[in-house]
Amino acid sequence: MSSTSIPKVLVVMGSDSDLPLVKDTLKTLKNFGVEYEAKVCSAHRTPELASELAKNAYDNGFDVIIAAAGKAAHLPGVIASYTTLPVIGIPIKSSALDGLDALLSIVQMPSGIPVATVAIDGCENAALLAVQILSVKFEHLRKALMEHKNRLAQIVEQKDKALQERLENEI
Amino acid sequence: MSSTSIPKVLVVMGSDSDLPLVKDTLKTLKNFGVEYEAKVCSAHRTPELASELAKNAYDNGFDVIIAAAGKAAHLPGVIASYTTLPVIGIPIKSSALDGLDALLSIVQMPSGIPVATVAIDGCENAALLAVQILSVKFEHLRKALMEHKNRLAQIVEQKDKALQERLENEI
Amino acid sequence: MSSTSIPKVLVVMGSDSDLPLVKDTLKTLKNFGVEYEAKVCSAHRTPELASELAKNAYDNGFDVIIAAAGKAAHLPGVIASYTTLPVIGIPIKSSALDGLDALLSIVQMPSGIPVATVAIDGCENAALLAVQILSVKFEHLRKALMEHKNRLAQIVEQKDKALQERLENEI
Amino acid sequence: MSSTSIPKVLVVMGSDSDLPLVKDTLKTLKNFGVEYEAKVCSAHRTPELASELAKNAYDNGFDVIIAAAGKAAHLPGVIASYTTLPVIGIPIKSSALDGLDALLSIVQMPSGIPVATVAIDGCENAALLAVQILSVKFEHLRKALMEHKNRLAQIVEQKDKALQERLENEI
Amino acid sequence: MSSTSIPKVLVVMGSDSDLPLVKDTLKTLKNFGVEYEAKVCSAHRTPELASELAKNAYDNGFDVIIAAAGKAAHLPGVIASYTTLPVIGIPIKSSALDGLDALLSIVQMPSGIPVATVAIDGCENAALLAVQILSVKFEHLRKALMEHKNRLAQIVEQKDKALQERLENEI
Amino acid sequence: MSSTSIPKVLVVMGSDSDLPLVKDTLKTLKNFGVEYEAKVCSAHRTPELASELAKNAYDNGFDVIIAAAGKAAHLPGVIASYTTLPVIGIPIKSSALDGLDALLSIVQMPSGIPVATVAIDGCENAALLAVQILSVKFEHLRKALMEHKNRLAQIVEQKDKALQERLENEI
Amino acid sequence: MSSTSIPKVLVVMGSDSDLPLVKDTLKTLKNFGVEYEAKVCSAHRTPELASELAKNAYDNGFDVIIAAAGKAAHLPGVIASYTTLPVIGIPIKSSALDGLDALLSIVQMPSGIPVATVAIDGCENAALLAVQILSVKFEHLRKALMEHKNRLAQIVEQKDKALQERLENEI
Amino acid sequence: MSSTSIPKVLVVMGSDSDLPLVKDTLKTLKNFGVEYEAKVCSAHRTPELASELAKNAYDNGFDVIIAAAGKAAHLPGVIASYTTLPVIGIPIKSSALDGLDALLSIVQMPSGIPVATVAIDGCENAALLAVQILSVKFEHLRKALMEHKNRLAQIVEQKDKALQERLENEI
Repeated sequence: MSSTSIPKVLVVMGSDSDLPLVKDTLKTLKNFGVEYEAKVCSAHRTPELASELAKNAYDNGFDVIIAAAGKAAHLPGVIASYTTLPVIGIPIKSSALDGLDALLSIVQMPSGIPVATVAIDGCENAALLAVQILSVKFEHLRKALMEHKNRLAQIVEQKDKALQERLENEI
Repeated sequence: MSSTSIPKVLVVMGSDSDLPLVKDTLKTLKNFGVEYEAKVCSAHRTPELASELAKNAYDNGFDVIIAAAGKAAHLPGVIASYTTLPVIGIPIKSSALDGLDALLSIVQMPSGIPVATVAIDGCENAALLAVQILSVKFEHLRKALMEHKNRLAQIVEQKDKALQERLENEI
Repeated sequence: MSSTSIPKVLVVMGSDSDLPLVKDTLKTLKNFGVEYEAKVCSAHRTPELASELAKNAYDNGFDVIIAAAGKAAHLPGVIASYTTLPVIGIPIKSSALDGLDALLSIVQMPSGIPVATVAIDGCENAALLAVQILSVKFEHLRKALMEHKNRLAQIVEQKDKALQERLENEI
Repeated sequence: MSSTSIPKVLVVMGSDSDLPLVKDTLKTLKNFGVEYEAKVCSAHRTPELASELAKNAYDNGFDVIIAAAGKAAHLPGVIASYTTLPVIGIPIKSSALDGLDALLSIVQMPSGIPVATVAIDGCENAALLAVQILSVKFEHLRKALMEHKNRLAQIVEQKDKALQERLENEI
Repeated sequence: MSSTSIPKVLVVMGSDSDLPLVKDTLKTLKNFGVEYEAKVCSAHRTPELASELAKNAYDNGFDVIIAAAGKAAHLPGVIASYTTLPVIGIPIKSSALDGLDALLSIVQMPSGIPVATVAIDGCENAALLAVQILSVKFEHLRKALMEHKNRLAQIVEQKDKALQERLENEI
Repeated sequence: MSSTSIPKVLVVMGSDSDLPLVKDTLKTLKNFGVEYEAKVCSAHRTPELASELAKNAYDNGFDVIIAAAGKAAHLPGVIASYTTLPVIGIPIKSSALDGLDALLSIVQMPSGIPVATVAIDGCENAALLAVQILSVKFEHLRKALMEHKNRLAQIVEQKDKALQERLENEI
Repeated sequence: MSSTSIPKVLVVMGSDSDLPLVKDTLKTLKNFGVEYEAKVCSAHRTPELASELAKNAYDNGFDVIIAAAGKAAHLPGVIASYTTLPVIGIPIKSSALDGLDALLSIVQMPSGIPVATVAIDGCENAALLAVQILSVKFEHLRKALMEHKNRLAQIVEQKDKALQERLENEI
Repeated sequence: MSSTSIPKVLVVMGSDSDLPLVKDTLKTLKNFGVEYEAKVCSAHRTPELASELAKNAYDNGFDVIIAAAGKAAHLPGVIASYTTLPVIGIPIKSSALDGLDALLSIVQMPSGIPVATVAIDGCENAALLAVQILSVKFEHLRKALMEHKNRLAQIVEQKDKALQERLENEI
């Protein structure tokens, strides 16, 4: 059961070729002190593994599942069909159609089985969304999210300052 | 096992709202004397039923599986992940995006697990494709397919004759 | 602050013309015993109201925000920019482009500010996703979600039985 | 006639520039011990050759035809119009529109003449689908397909193991 | 041979369901005094008829061919592959994808075999384009085209006058 | 007036950056012995030049006009609005949207003013279509087109032979 | 010349069938006390009228031009090519492609000749944008725009109140 | 207040990664002698800064605002919601979907809050549109725009001359 005091996320990717992108998910979770387990698991090549991961996720202490997949990206939906945990889907852009196939395969879920979809290749945002979801229960994450939000604003403001200096010189 | 002398097709639809369209599949199979079983089964709401249907299809004497679904249409791919039988996918047009979501969700399958995709709402063609596949083994279907092909040509020719008569009168 | 024992969702729609669809969201939340407040609020016509709603949502005891909007659907993203609560976005199909404009405006959020996007017009799923998110904290909702999942499966199975009877008679 | 004991596939590509992709089709067929003949043949530049290939395919002992083409990809449909053998179409991505033109030209066949369409550039899957179709008749291919399916699963599991090791070191 | 003094156009439609639209083609040709023959002929159901029509078109005195088709609209391209006459293609909008499938199937022809594509459902324009092509040889059509162009301009000017009157009263 | 014995084509490109592609148009016309004049002329930057070119094209002895343009590609339509000569439009792919913007801007002309549209970047086909149109009047081009068609077929056959040799060695 | 004290807008529509939509433009201008002239004028059927309207617009005292057109919507771009006044383009949705053709034909203008594009069928917004542009010069319009903005906000707030009452009764 | 005699434009970009493109905006404004201020400001990361910039723009003497953003590009719409100044939106192409997401997020604004949208990456045109808008008030810019229009025409004519010389030598 998941009534532990430690927030924990299961991150599943359809192929190990997704790792360079999904690393942003893992790093972001780590930065927020959220425990995670990462798995390579294909909805189509290892369907039973996928269903097992999903069915046992709650009992294994996971609070949220993130699933990344490309093309006819069924992984998030397949996982969602076997669990009541919130499932976040990341559409991965592959060699054709610029990720539109993965986006529609993930977001257009039928009534009854939602998948929380983020942007194409939106791996960092998937982690942030997971942290936001966890913060409903784990109050300390709320504060970390606020600090993160402030940092984002500060970075934009620093970039604006740098812009002002560049413009004086360059144009 | 499927080494029976009777060709047999499993037809699965994701929702009973697909029946008005899928009836064309069933009627066409019937016209060719191909036995079928039709099931309502959702990849997302009844994932275990879907996997059971797929895993047992060969032992239950099926030679081919046809699966119809709309939106994020995972049913054909999910079934294909649990069987080595050929799986034909029918993308069903639903309320948004004109069926493009279902088409891409079905046709863009990753390497290793193909789905034989027909046109959006192409329910009759799914049955014809199943009969063509069955005809590789069941020689009598070859002849039936040829007759069907000839009938299609004759209908076009009759329509052309009717056109000639209409044109003389109308324009 | 939101450390209440009652799960509570803020539902915002960009226009009152969205209500016929968004009612499914409200009914589903009610069915799960989740408290909600519903607001008409436009990101573009009442931007200050939108930012106030978002900024105060946590202090007003909300755990999750759902925002529905069509066309250049900025409402979910604008709300997400002012809060660290998880924000669920529903793209509403309007008169042109079949909802693709709303979908891309909602899902393609830049790094830092995620929106959990559901299907075009996916109003029931937005509520279910909210309940899944709430269930991370509120254990009793986990059980309700499991029962709901079982009911969905039973309905499919009943529809399948009805299909078998119809097929015997009709085809 | 095709009642031989050897499964045989005709592979047609619209241009020899498709060969680097179509090689995956040929290799996969070879791996399954399926005999094939490969032809360059354009629906538009050599229409009579295309129709001859299709009309004679059955008498030449072929059980299945695979056709790959890009842009306004008529080759699979043109071949399907001249045969009752199952025809598998591979949409090839070319310089514009990311393969969407080829996909729609192949999959959207009108009632009466189906083409079993696989993913854009889905050359390996076209071969696997052919083997699945052949396995309806040739029982030994069923076992080979099952072994192949198991190998795919094993590869995913190995990649998952490698991932676990990388993660311990890298993140 | 086509060196007759009478301009003559072959109009082929893939299905008699296209006639309500294609009538505009026929009426426009008639208005310009251009002789035509109209045929129902499917690239997929009657491929040999299609190739015969195309191969004999020049010898039967036709100067231009117009072909209308929907979905995976191969008819114009198939006809173009069997003739050196200019072929005009009309993409017909059918039940899904709003005609985009027909447009791409017709316009994206590979190098060597052009099809002169007009707008989706652009049946009148197909006839006008045929008359423009014929006017290269038949000088009297040039004058008729100029008069037609003037009439179009006059109609717009009359509509503008009517608008001025309506606006005075209505707004 | 254009009743000369020499076929002559006006080729207009919206920008000199289109020349690397449009060269294929010019070379193909040259290969068929068709005289041409090539102009850089923008519908938007030099609208009066564009209208002058179009209005005088017939009197300057041109039989057909070819216009190539990218993005919001108005050039072919603008030229067509000022002439009764057949106008062939080439949509040029530019930095965004893969040429879809140019294709729709050219092909979707309203009733009354057709543009004969070829494939995105279909510069060679534009020339071939022009030659086909000219061949209605100039009989010697019919023969040249037939020879060209035969050459295309021979090239495909040669490529097929080369393929057979490669396959024996490579796979 | 336009140095008059009265703001004045030229509204051009490609066809009188656009009037039911364009009426919103005219009414909105009237509500702001902005003088306008409305014309039916086709870029393709009356190109010289279109260029005359554009060339004389400044001398006729117009400050801004609004142009509405569907399909291959060249009218706004053609007008912009003949004037230095700001041109606002309204893409009109017609029978196919849901207005995407008109949107891309209007918005994707090449460097040098901008068109200020509003939403598909965005006729009211075109007028508001014109008023915003005029307000740069005509200070009294600034105040009117602010009042309009406030009214919009009030209407949303009233709708929200009405929603609260409905919800108490209905759900 | 903005009744100064100096035209002034506020240019906001969602990220400093947009600067290489937005530089064209700044340079063009500078060439026309239009004063500008450039800011990095994100609708989502610095929403309060964005609203402050917009709310104070008029009092800070700005006449027009230009906003550039990619993906779910809310910046122009968010700014427009807080001001009555005309807002020009530049959709920036990012890593997926070729800029279509940004285009639809910017152009499809709901009734009441227009954004004057230019082409994807149309940074120079955004500046020209701003100058056209300013020229309604500042007469000296009218003349500069006319000279610019003439220069554009001359450049096309020079390129045409260069083409004639190249063609003589090259083809």
